[in-house]
Amino acid sequence: MKAVQYRTVGGTPEVVQLPVPVPAPGQVLLRMTAAGVCHSDIAVMSMPAEQLSFPLPLTLGHEGVGTVAAVGDGVVAVEVGDAVAVYGPWGCGICAKCAEGKENYCLRARDLGIFPPGLGAPGAMAEYMIVDDIRHLVPLGDLDPVQAVPLTDAGLTPYHAIKRSLPKLVPGSTAVVIGTGGLGHVAIQILRALSPARVIALDVSEEKLALAREVGAHEAILSDAQSVAAVRKLTEGKGAEAVFDFVGAPPTAATAGGCVAVEGDVTIVGLGGGSLPVGFGTTPYEASVTAPYWGSRGELTEVLDLARSGVISVHTETYGIDDAPTAYQHLHDGTVRGRAVILPQE
Amino acid sequence: MKAVQYRTVGGTPEVVQLPVPVPAPGQVLLRMTAAGVCHSDIAVMSMPAEQLSFPLPLTLGHEGVGTVAAVGDGVVAVEVGDAVAVYGPWGCGICAKCAEGKENYCLRARDLGIFPPGLGAPGAMAEYMIVDDIRHLVPLGDLDPVQAVPLTDAGLTPYHAIKRSLPKLVPGSTAVVIGTGGLGHVAIQILRALSPARVIALDVSEEKLALAREVGAHEAILSDAQSVAAVRKLTEGKGAEAVFDFVGAPPTAATAGGCVAVEGDVTIVGLGGGSLPVGFGTTPYEASVTAPYWGSRGELTEVLDLARSGVISVHTETYGIDDAPTAYQHLHDGTVRGRAVILPQE
Amino acid sequence: MKAVQYRTVGGTPEVVQLPVPVPAPGQVLLRMTAAGVCHSDIAVMSMPAEQLSFPLPLTLGHEGVGTVAAVGDGVVAVEVGDAVAVYGPWGCGICAKCAEGKENYCLRARDLGIFPPGLGAPGAMAEYMIVDDIRHLVPLGDLDPVQAVPLTDAGLTPYHAIKRSLPKLVPGSTAVVIGTGGLGHVAIQILRALSPARVIALDVSEEKLALAREVGAHEAILSDAQSVAAVRKLTEGKGAEAVFDFVGAPPTAATAGGCVAVEGDVTIVGLGGGSLPVGFGTTPYEASVTAPYWGSRGELTEVLDLARSGVISVHTETYGIDDAPTAYQHLHDGTVRGRAVILPQE
Amino acid sequence: MKAVQYRTVGGTPEVVQLPVPVPAPGQVLLRMTAAGVCHSDIAVMSMPAEQLSFPLPLTLGHEGVGTVAAVGDGVVAVEVGDAVAVYGPWGCGICAKCAEGKENYCLRARDLGIFPPGLGAPGAMAEYMIVDDIRHLVPLGDLDPVQAVPLTDAGLTPYHAIKRSLPKLVPGSTAVVIGTGGLGHVAIQILRALSPARVIALDVSEEKLALAREVGAHEAILSDAQSVAAVRKLTEGKGAEAVFDFVGAPPTAATAGGCVAVEGDVTIVGLGGGSLPVGFGTTPYEASVTAPYWGSRGELTEVLDLARSGVISVHTETYGIDDAPTAYQHLHDGTVRGRAVILPQE
Repeated sequence: MKAVQYRTVGGTPEVVQLPVPVPAPGQVLLRMTAAGVCHSDIAVMSMPAEQLSFPLPLTLGHEGVGTVAAVGDGVVAVEVGDAVAVYGPWGCGICAKCAEGKENYCLRARDLGIFPPGLGAPGAMAEYMIVDDIRHLVPLGDLDPVQAVPLTDAGLTPYHAIKRSLPKLVPGSTAVVIGTGGLGHVAIQILRALSPARVIALDVSEEKLALAREVGAHEAILSDAQSVAAVRKLTEGKGAEAVFDFVGAPPTAATAGGCVAVEGDVTIVGLGGGSLPVGFGTTPYEASVTAPYWGSRGELTEVLDLARSGVISVHTETYGIDDAPTAYQHLHDGTVRGRAVILPQE
Repeated sequence: MKAVQYRTVGGTPEVVQLPVPVPAPGQVLLRMTAAGVCHSDIAVMSMPAEQLSFPLPLTLGHEGVGTVAAVGDGVVAVEVGDAVAVYGPWGCGICAKCAEGKENYCLRARDLGIFPPGLGAPGAMAEYMIVDDIRHLVPLGDLDPVQAVPLTDAGLTPYHAIKRSLPKLVPGSTAVVIGTGGLGHVAIQILRALSPARVIALDVSEEKLALAREVGAHEAILSDAQSVAAVRKLTEGKGAEAVFDFVGAPPTAATAGGCVAVEGDVTIVGLGGGSLPVGFGTTPYEASVTAPYWGSRGELTEVLDLARSGVISVHTETYGIDDAPTAYQHLHDGTVRGRAVILPQE
Repeated sequence: MKAVQYRTVGGTPEVVQLPVPVPAPGQVLLRMTAAGVCHSDIAVMSMPAEQLSFPLPLTLGHEGVGTVAAVGDGVVAVEVGDAVAVYGPWGCGICAKCAEGKENYCLRARDLGIFPPGLGAPGAMAEYMIVDDIRHLVPLGDLDPVQAVPLTDAGLTPYHAIKRSLPKLVPGSTAVVIGTGGLGHVAIQILRALSPARVIALDVSEEKLALAREVGAHEAILSDAQSVAAVRKLTEGKGAEAVFDFVGAPPTAATAGGCVAVEGDVTIVGLGGGSLPVGFGTTPYEASVTAPYWGSRGELTEVLDLARSGVISVHTETYGIDDAPTAYQHLHDGTVRGRAVILPQE
Repeated sequence: MKAVQYRTVGGTPEVVQLPVPVPAPGQVLLRMTAAGVCHSDIAVMSMPAEQLSFPLPLTLGHEGVGTVAAVGDGVVAVEVGDAVAVYGPWGCGICAKCAEGKENYCLRARDLGIFPPGLGAPGAMAEYMIVDDIRHLVPLGDLDPVQAVPLTDAGLTPYHAIKRSLPKLVPGSTAVVIGTGGLGHVAIQILRALSPARVIALDVSEEKLALAREVGAHEAILSDAQSVAAVRKLTEGKGAEAVFDFVGAPPTAATAGGCVAVEGDVTIVGLGGGSLPVGFGTTPYEASVTAPYWGSRGELTEVLDLARSGVISVHTETYGIDDAPTAYQHLHDGTVRGRAVILPQE
């Protein structure tokens, strides 16, 4: 089968031929219908060798959907032909976090050498992939694979971040979304569907702001030195009850801190290396700042249900598997609008 | 091996000889060190044939702890010799409830024919038992098996009920515990450990009230027609912010409704066939009434951690496996103080 | 000034002439721009003398908006001319409930003889009214008085009920609204604005169901003996995560109990004298049933903010103050579509 | 009457003679029985003139209890002779925050020139003080004034911080308290009363650690470069689910960040000028960092109820009013054990 691999430190993704794997007891083999291309893959491919915690080559792709092609001994809950999405943040399944479905925060994954597919384990960007346990599958139903696949990360990650802040997003409140790309443009739609908050989007180009407005932002303003003042003005000085920073760079983290209201939430999602200092007199009273990671199994079910109701529309660009290296290049160059999706069978 | 079975509708428990089972792929064989005797077993054995949703014979015991004796193919997370407790409310493992560890509320168990051990599947009251998946095991550590085994139901059930009401149990609040037997006397200790609420215990005998005081109740009063007035007086008319009814009979449900405060919680846990009518003018403003069932995987971990810290002491009476029928007779007669525990190896 | 009063037990509302009251220190005099007509007024006027806890005559109207006409000594937070809404459930202001703005649950109002305006204290259905304290005023801004006045009860009451259940109304969930009249048709809009839940409306006439669909219900079905089966079918057997009964009669309460899901909420809001028995085996596992009353000060602010964002549209019929008795007759006859509003200055 | 005032920028507290004030309509005059001495007073007296947002002289004391000596027109809810505590963080009473009793986060106090007593308005360190509204009074009952007075800040502030984190402080969890002085030694007791968490105290002297153990800390260890490793070891690598930093200096904030677990809370309470940078890769996944201020009206009621149940014992040193300047000197020198309390009538 064809697979897209990162093979040597500092290299670029390559399309290679591999044998189709065979599912061991408890495992499931999927024939992949779509796989997502993500900034985190580029982050991994930029790491020096000593930071990589797993061996190469690595089949890429931590966003994946497919149909069941074969099952290992003892698997009865799914059948050949079922359409499923892969829950990516694999954990041990039995620690206190995993017991609540929060495998993204598994307490033992690192010690046990468990990695998400595409981020250590063989990933979704291949004609076939192995899923280690049926608990990492969520039924897809008749959702379109291309629309659905980005939801497993680009949907689940903002969904988790937003759900945490929903109690604060009452009528009259404001949510700020910094960065309206792959995750941000989905976040805007989730905010509109789940809360009555006014949504203000910030980004650095007019084209991105146009997308933000198109998907539901009430206001879309350029992200620059004036953003904080603009948000304060729009909120009559109060600031925003929730700020989501999908860039996470030093200047956006500072903007997030400047926009947040008393008792508000700042959630730093982007991997841009920024941080926000929190302290008495530094941030508004009881503004709470956190940097979460991905989401839970239950939340993935909810995101897919939300998509099924028709209120999320992910902007995608599709590529055949042989063009996956090009997709990564486009993402790196910042020319992808929304999310790039690989079609492993094309 | 020896096993305690309910074999014919209307019969009594019998000790029988069975072959030691062999774990299939993904399963675990436990050598049982303790199994709990519960009122629900008696409820099951009182059902007419048409209400039984599973075939007989049934090996009893939905509370169980043991040590791993053998593992099936593919099981790596536990090893032979590990001491573990069994999480009893088995579900499908992948529905929305199970994804959050709430297998007690599995949406598909009934359709798939999945039953808890001792309540449909072969139970813990035997020298050996099969656990279907490692997610139904919680490490026991050095907890004493006799102390620990009742916690898997008689501890987990009140823990779940109490945890739900903790936000209401602030300083100055009151919790009422109706029925201070197997579950109730554990509930009192959990309330004392987890909240600053004043605890008022109600039961029908002075002996039970003595146990209630011994395990931490601030007040212990006879459960009769004057109980409601007594609780109102102790709370200066306000009533209790949380009422837990471990009897669940018609008179205790009525008492629960009479004791509860505005915005308080009534939780009906006992299977006594009672119910409480809720409506405008019937119950205090926004008093909330519910009847939960057992608890989640995460909560079982928490109950065992609580026991490990030394603040729960379960009153137990132990019986060898051959005396299990006698234990059920004692429970039926109301002469067990605390919880009856079977030692399957004795 | 003109005022609409209930003067003798068993009588009908009368328009009378009264002197314009003078605000004492701390009080505010409002010139009323709108007052709402509510089923609870009819309930009060149907009570026998021994159930009335306050003396007659009573100026009616617990929903009121107006402009500040004069202020008593020491009032500085509002100025003559300010447009305001009246928060109706008056409490003592200092008990534990009032300290959190939940004056609807004041622990001392009854003992201190404090009544809401129109339900014991002189109400809003007059050219002028006295508000006892500025904390019972919420700025109206430029909201239309006729649109805004029903929100102080017919908006606040469902808002409070819905807000309680929001954590359960995740994507993929269902909310059932029973009774789509004054409160119910606002509830549907609040549910759509605050949650991604699918909304199913139940009522007894096709005309009411048409209104339900118009204001956003996804499904609207006749409320009869088949309703429960219909809701179960629409939810693939699961039932609804939240059921709001704005009728509260015996048959609707039974329907509510039949529709609710495991871990779901039933909220009985209507004063129809019904109740729902809750117990193990009677209601689904951990379904929670409650009957709340009105809402908090903070929630009134939120409802008005929601209206300001344009997502709530109350259906109203307006009457001049001399026609208030006719409005009550129409409400009694069930011929009001949405909410009847009195214009005290016309 | 005698009063302790801060009169000139850079000066020290002075005892002066002032006329006894007269309560205006709505106000209450208290005869003070105790007033607390706090580090924040020293912070205020260290500010340069341009940072002071109110004019001098200032009567000190934001912690106060007393008995009602006289009431202004219209005050009926309290009577002469009532023992009361003063809720210090005064707000406007009607904004969205104040409507929920969170006057500590009043949205308009600054604009309206409203200041807490002793931090802008005339404070509690005098024979008599004016309270502007009965909502700023909480009944004291028979609580000892010396024990009670520190609870209005040194009790309320940690209570608020801890209450926020209670959902995370389940059995098996750990709470770290950094700084075991006036607020910290109360925090330890509140944690023990409200949660089953293991409490680890950190401070810089053995004497402070002895006090920490005395009031209930399970572990008390020196706060130094090894603290983080010590906490990690005690928690088997997980870290603490909640960390409370009552010092708030740069090194303690860094320690707090090093101790916190995945999904844990860091609450920076102390005014020591430190801050903790939060970002992806900087702090553990979803660790949440915040710096709250004081607490709500409802929480003050709860703290006093907690004290009434006998589980909080504040360590105090008392001084007559003439010795108040000495008390401030001792606090500045770090020689006060627990909390210094002024007796204004002695």
